Amino acid sequence: MKVDPPQAQSFAPPLRTLMGPGPSNVSQRVLDAIGRPTIGHLDPQFVVLMDEIKGLLQYAFQTENNLTIPVSGPGSAGMETCFVNLVQPGDTVVVCQNGVFGGRMKANVERCGATAVLIEDEWGQPVDPNKLEAALVANPQATTVAFVHAETSTGAQSDAQALVALAHQHGCLAIVDAVTSLGGTPLLVDEWEIDAVYSGSQKCLSAPPGLSPVSFSDAAVERIKSRETDVQSWFMDLNLVMGYWGGDGVRSYHHTAPINALYGLHEALVILAEEGLQSAWARHQTNHEALAEGMNELGLGFVVPEAARLPQLNSVTVPDGVDEAAVRSKLLEQFNLEIGSGLGALAGKVWRIGLMGHTSSAKNVEYCVGALKDVLAEA
Amino acid sequence: MKVDPPQAQSFAPPLRTLMGPGPSNVSQRVLDAIGRPTIGHLDPQFVVLMDEIKGLLQYAFQTENNLTIPVSGPGSAGMETCFVNLVQPGDTVVVCQNGVFGGRMKANVERCGATAVLIEDEWGQPVDPNKLEAALVANPQATTVAFVHAETSTGAQSDAQALVALAHQHGCLAIVDAVTSLGGTPLLVDEWEIDAVYSGSQKCLSAPPGLSPVSFSDAAVERIKSRETDVQSWFMDLNLVMGYWGGDGVRSYHHTAPINALYGLHEALVILAEEGLQSAWARHQTNHEALAEGMNELGLGFVVPEAARLPQLNSVTVPDGVDEAAVRSKLLEQFNLEIGSGLGALAGKVWRIGLMGHTSSAKNVEYCVGALKDVLAEA
Repeated sequence: MKVDPPQAQSFAPPLRTLMGPGPSNVSQRVLDAIGRPTIGHLDPQFVVLMDEIKGLLQYAFQTENNLTIPVSGPGSAGMETCFVNLVQPGDTVVVCQNGVFGGRMKANVERCGATAVLIEDEWGQPVDPNKLEAALVANPQATTVAFVHAETSTGAQSDAQALVALAHQHGCLAIVDAVTSLGGTPLLVDEWEIDAVYSGSQKCLSAPPGLSPVSFSDAAVERIKSRETDVQSWFMDLNLVMGYWGGDGVRSYHHTAPINALYGLHEALVILAEEGLQSAWARHQTNHEALAEGMNELGLGFVVPEAARLPQLNSVTVPDGVDEAAVRSKLLEQFNLEIGSGLGALAGKVWRIGLMGHTSSAKNVEYCVGALKDVLAEA
Repeated sequence: MKVDPPQAQSFAPPLRTLMGPGPSNVSQRVLDAIGRPTIGHLDPQFVVLMDEIKGLLQYAFQTENNLTIPVSGPGSAGMETCFVNLVQPGDTVVVCQNGVFGGRMKANVERCGATAVLIEDEWGQPVDPNKLEAALVANPQATTVAFVHAETSTGAQSDAQALVALAHQHGCLAIVDAVTSLGGTPLLVDEWEIDAVYSGSQKCLSAPPGLSPVSFSDAAVERIKSRETDVQSWFMDLNLVMGYWGGDGVRSYHHTAPINALYGLHEALVILAEEGLQSAWARHQTNHEALAEGMNELGLGFVVPEAARLPQLNSVTVPDGVDEAAVRSKLLEQFNLEIGSGLGALAGKVWRIGLMGHTSSAKNVEYCVGALKDVLAEA
């Protein structure tokens, strides 16, 4: 053979405490589930599993939407699935940006051949409904509004219900990024009348990354079915994906589902159902408050105003003169503790401390506060 | 809560022998690997793993291409990654179809806003180089040729080296579907001068489905970097993906990689390197020959002419008067044995028996022949 293999052995990952912006720690139950024997993607037993996953996701999203499924890719693929299906060339989409992921939404809109009207809020602030309303008044041709419910890059939570209501008042459908909110903070898809929502498996659900739960309202499905142009992505075309996940009794092959990853998502959703959504939200809130107290004792401030803080993603300010990357490296090397850096406008200025899903425990709060105290004392 | 969770417990999959068109059986070593603790996608240890995966994929593909990575999605996402990056609106692409996946390639071309010139061969036959040459002569404006090396829907193998050479003689780049060939039958990306190739994790590599190894030549990368229009998919835009996987020292966040799935692919590739590519190819051939002998004894014919038969995917004809679906159901229920049905033009007419990767063993050949004999005797 002309090309030799590199030296490589079985990989033994270190045991990390994952308190960054995701992935969160995966429980042993979920790890056991994904390691179970693979079966076929058209196996009758697998079809039972798919139906259970749909029902469990409907519970997690609090929706009766029939089109509630995990996209076979990470959150970015879930985002793109929403845009390529709901947006057509020539459309106008109002995109609210208050962090990294609003910017990514804008890129998605433009790559669909549509026009993005961007309304901007400061990073760390929630989306301002007044600005959205003004943009909708100024752009009556708009068909869609898109915003991030829980900005993973800052830790700010926006008022999804109010923003969706504004979208509907102006005849638009609403696409909502709930990557970091699902399972960690209230998200009521039906009550808030969200039309399209996407999330990720590796945040508050605490499955490994690689799947993106999505849900679409009847109005969204109607728009998808009545498109004048083909969805530009074959892989993400929900008209085709529905044939496999659709639940009309016949499963037609579209692409091969990621079997073992779905075992893991299923187990993570069973765990969430066992705990109960409200208990999970309360746990996230309690541990957030304990972390906030600890940060306060260390003299670290929060970027996001208290009323808009996500309990599961805490952006705290790096003290003057401290090398933020060096602190993260020490935490990783000395404590096997991962926390996140700032992105975009907040790069170098903040740390992002995640308390998501299985990671959100009193023990981890204590561990993180203690480790950060030790490392900052050395810095 | 308005929406209650369904009754759902931890999932215990049945133990199947997977002899369909994929997924193949996943070894315990790979299952153990994917169940190891999750770490972050920017963890220094994970970056080491990514580099090893790149090197191991270069070996599997027999290429020194730097852009050799697993796409974070199933084979269909790998296919689309090739098309959306290499094809621009208005281009002409010659697509060779001799089964399901050539048709999917055509759909991809058209969704890129390009024109597909389709050349067709009978299902079960390899692609005819003479037809490709004629199409290239008739379409001097063509920029790209696309064909399937190993048609999973029929089991026919085409002469990739000859088809790529024709593409190059006419100034085209060549996109090759190697979903079912990688690891099971000779595939020499550099020697055959393939420009873009995609595969799947769940065929002859025997990792779970969900990842798509791809590799791009320097000429392909040059075309991607010099595009006049943005890649229509943000998620699949290799200009962005390269920043994470690129190997220039700095890893920039694009999307969150499917960590545990990559543990599994890594282990599967380590196993392939331990066995050696040539030994793996020889094993697939030996077990195919044993299966062919068994099918002959049962009086079942092959769809594909002997010279073009893929050892890892065997399409055999359903005897007259036999209910093919009933036979598959009995095999599954009585023997926990999965074999595949025919697709498209071969639906109802054939069974597809896979001998891919970990599934390709003398024991499984014997088991399958015996089970099929028993069930056919009852039919």
